[in-house]
Amino acid sequence: MELVGKVLIAQAGGPTAVINQSLVGAALEARKFNQITKVYGALKGVEGIINENFVDLTKETTNNLEKVAKTPSSALLSTRIKPDEAYCKEMFKVMQAHEVRYFFYIGGNDSSDTVRIVSENADRANYELRAIHIPKTIDNDLVINDHTPGYGSAARFVAQAFSGVNLDNRAMGGVYIGVVMGRHAGFLTAASALGQKYPDDGPHLIYVPERAFNIDKFLFDVKAVYEKYGRCVVAVSEGISDELGTPILAKLKGELEQDFHGNVQLSGTGALGDLLSDMVKKKLGISRVRSDTFGYLQRSFLGVVSDVDQQEAREVGEKAAQFALWNNIDGSIVIERIGYYSVDYRLESLQKIAGKTKLMNDKFINKKGNGVTDEFKFYLRPLLGSGFNTAHRLRAPLAEKILNK
Amino acid sequence: MELVGKVLIAQAGGPTAVINQSLVGAALEARKFNQITKVYGALKGVEGIINENFVDLTKETTNNLEKVAKTPSSALLSTRIKPDEAYCKEMFKVMQAHEVRYFFYIGGNDSSDTVRIVSENADRANYELRAIHIPKTIDNDLVINDHTPGYGSAARFVAQAFSGVNLDNRAMGGVYIGVVMGRHAGFLTAASALGQKYPDDGPHLIYVPERAFNIDKFLFDVKAVYEKYGRCVVAVSEGISDELGTPILAKLKGELEQDFHGNVQLSGTGALGDLLSDMVKKKLGISRVRSDTFGYLQRSFLGVVSDVDQQEAREVGEKAAQFALWNNIDGSIVIERIGYYSVDYRLESLQKIAGKTKLMNDKFINKKGNGVTDEFKFYLRPLLGSGFNTAHRLRAPLAEKILNK
Repeated sequence: MELVGKVLIAQAGGPTAVINQSLVGAALEARKFNQITKVYGALKGVEGIINENFVDLTKETTNNLEKVAKTPSSALLSTRIKPDEAYCKEMFKVMQAHEVRYFFYIGGNDSSDTVRIVSENADRANYELRAIHIPKTIDNDLVINDHTPGYGSAARFVAQAFSGVNLDNRAMGGVYIGVVMGRHAGFLTAASALGQKYPDDGPHLIYVPERAFNIDKFLFDVKAVYEKYGRCVVAVSEGISDELGTPILAKLKGELEQDFHGNVQLSGTGALGDLLSDMVKKKLGISRVRSDTFGYLQRSFLGVVSDVDQQEAREVGEKAAQFALWNNIDGSIVIERIGYYSVDYRLESLQKIAGKTKLMNDKFINKKGNGVTDEFKFYLRPLLGSGFNTAHRLRAPLAEKILNK
Repeated sequence: MELVGKVLIAQAGGPTAVINQSLVGAALEARKFNQITKVYGALKGVEGIINENFVDLTKETTNNLEKVAKTPSSALLSTRIKPDEAYCKEMFKVMQAHEVRYFFYIGGNDSSDTVRIVSENADRANYELRAIHIPKTIDNDLVINDHTPGYGSAARFVAQAFSGVNLDNRAMGGVYIGVVMGRHAGFLTAASALGQKYPDDGPHLIYVPERAFNIDKFLFDVKAVYEKYGRCVVAVSEGISDELGTPILAKLKGELEQDFHGNVQLSGTGALGDLLSDMVKKKLGISRVRSDTFGYLQRSFLGVVSDVDQQEAREVGEKAAQFALWNNIDGSIVIERIGYYSVDYRLESLQKIAGKTKLMNDKFINKKGNGVTDEFKFYLRPLLGSGFNTAHRLRAPLAEKILNK
């Protein structure tokens, strides 16, 4: 029997450049089914559900939905709240009152765990609900997925940024350190390698959280590159930690802000870059050392987006509606890579995804732990999309010196 | 009589996204004249001249020059060195040995002063030389010019960045502070206003170096916006200073690096943003406060460029060659705005440009000193070029609350 009722869509966690593609994909696909009475969007994730703050997307024009789909960041706003049992019970009360029968939650691994809790609570409460997790994260750290929507666009930003700062560093000299988002997984930082074109292009050194960061080794690496090229570009994850798992930033700052999930605040501060810069200046005696922390630009920059990422984000939303409405099971939409390059989607059980973190495969990181392999570049390249700009150098020959001839 | 000899082109100061358009415009235009024997490019500005480090651009393909023109940052590399009399004499020796008769120097106000010194020294030495300054600076602070090549593309980056972080801040809440380049002039920071679309869009507050920055007033402003919208996006110039002219950053850091021109290092550190964030957290008790320092991304980001800026940068290069070869005077190429929107170019005397700094006109800054006027937006809009993305919001109506009915 068809499950008649409303669709409720919400977005959670950090925004991405394509998260609204998933929202619009799910909303428009759901409206093709007769049993869907309305499509609601909850404002601010689960907070919107508790507070009954819903917008009626059924009353939105398709034209505007298509415009919103191309706009970065969460159009339904976001939340960092992770519901416990009690919170879920409050959510059900509201869902029941509104006859919500389809719940689509767009988010990362914390959010997939939220969907799992909601799904399990619905079962226990004998409330008929299809709960589907739609993947999204610039960190690319959802298990089972080949990659996640949002990553390709953020990776494109990071690669383009490093392609540019490499040119800047080549013109001005010195050492440049770019700090990239990534708490546990280094995928986004590793994307900096796709900014390289010529053999001596930076980033010359790439440090990801998957390898323990040793300050002496870092200084040794920088010195070696600087002696070879007279300059050095470094890409480093905000989440780099020492052998004991202590974040390098935590070594610097005593008091660190914590969010609802008990995570230390790494983004929104330039402290890590400044610390590393100061060390290079003092220990290596290099005068021109600069650092930038890419911060929030990399996940919601207007106009830098991968078309491949856009299309896939759209499709995971569409598939969520299709799986929910053609089948009778909950789960998480998973992206599978088939060939080079195409993808397909399937539904995986929430238990297998929820709360787990995928790290970079060993084969993607070089032996020295300060760079990536060609295998990683092969993996990432198609995700950056089409029309990716590359740098061009002068190839004009040097003129003969004649002054002291 | 025609002045037969070589053209020598060099680039100086901070790179821009379109500085190579000027290089290529000058090189290709110069090659149309019979009296030009060769077109040389000096590597690293005046350093390349002293050291006879020239590339022979005559042996470069037009195809590759066109590719390089579209690549950000200085293809001939750059320098911060500003030559004195003795340095200029060394330069002349080399120029004479190579029969350089046309010198085109692409740079900002420091560089225009270099061209002035070179020109005056050439006169005194009775060395026949045409020296032309080709304008370039993301700061937009060259006097007499309506605007400068490089500014439009950097402004586009800043506007797009703020359009994105505004969406991010809207989704996540809290206070966001974005630190933008600009030592004395606030033009680039002010460009953040072009990221606004909806009435409550950020940046809600914009602080430029043209107005004394008062920390209490800043906190008062942030509090007012936060109380009104539940969030606040701030754009601030790296060069903001207090009533006495002391940089706010200098109040924080005791020891500050200085460059060859006696300028304090403001870029390449996240310290100012972190300082302001800490104050908002502590004084206003707002928990989620984030800051990003846009740093080097804003002047050399691959793929974010204004087509208008590209075209004008090309033309100032072409005009430099034309003025030098059709006339017998030195000077600086100036951009004049004629109509809305078109431009024309003329040659202005170096003395009028050299070493002077243009600040934002009073009519561009609001009375409170924490925002820009519509007149500024009218001024800037055409410089951002075509195809500028804008954000779109959901306009779906709120659904009725029924739980406690």
